[in-house]
Amino acid sequence: MPKRIDHIAIIVRDIEQALVFYRDTLGIAPGEIQEVPTEHVRIAFLPMGGPGGSEIELIEPTAPDSSLAKFLEKRGEGLHHICLEVENIDAELADMREKGAQVLDKQPRIAAEGRAIFLHPKGTNGVLLELLEKS
Amino acid sequence: MPKRIDHIAIIVRDIEQALVFYRDTLGIAPGEIQEVPTEHVRIAFLPMGGPGGSEIELIEPTAPDSSLAKFLEKRGEGLHHICLEVENIDAELADMREKGAQVLDKQPRIAAEGRAIFLHPKGTNGVLLELLEKS
Repeated sequence: MPKRIDHIAIIVRDIEQALVFYRDTLGIAPGEIQEVPTEHVRIAFLPMGGPGGSEIELIEPTAPDSSLAKFLEKRGEGLHHICLEVENIDAELADMREKGAQVLDKQPRIAAEGRAIFLHPKGTNGVLLELLEKS
Repeated sequence: MPKRIDHIAIIVRDIEQALVFYRDTLGIAPGEIQEVPTEHVRIAFLPMGGPGGSEIELIEPTAPDSSLAKFLEKRGEGLHHICLEVENIDAELADMREKGAQVLDKQPRIAAEGRAIFLHPKGTNGVLLELLEKS
């Protein structure tokens, strides 16, 4: 069972341009922009609510043929996924499978902050859902 | 400046059906389903992370001609908006106007949990953004 919302991800064309609103207008101080070459993205977190607070993640696709770039092309900028933190991703994966959830991963993938699985929007009322065990 | 993510809203056709996944499969205990006749919706919150934790809100439009029902018809179920809590909504509204943000409300509207304004997705990289002063 998920413990908390870890982050909500927004897909954008250009992180620096997005920060004009999120940092300069709204006033949230972002973390450093990180390159994640294995996932073909640049990301930046916008921390809120102190330690343990849920964050906004800005995601900018860096490879034009990646699935994220195609999502951006098709749907435009906007909300992309929610990430919920769980205690034990292996137990969660087994539980989701047993309950018939539509899991996109056969085994947990290595994400920036730990190990994660994704659930298909078809089984979650239209929401791409990440479950994450933080490392 | 926003203090924390208050909630992330997911628009669904039928809250009871959505709870089959969010409550029964994922295991999050929902709050009571509330009718909000003035907004033509039924809503349920899925609390996570203890007191002060960010929540998921499920929203079911109840009037076929409402803007929410039209959103659902056009885009299908899925992520709808993010709500950020602020200290003082009047000061925030003045600040957003001064900075040229595209505010959808001339004055704060009365929401279920306090007073709120919405920002148009055109100025927020595609995200319908609610700023809320809780009452």
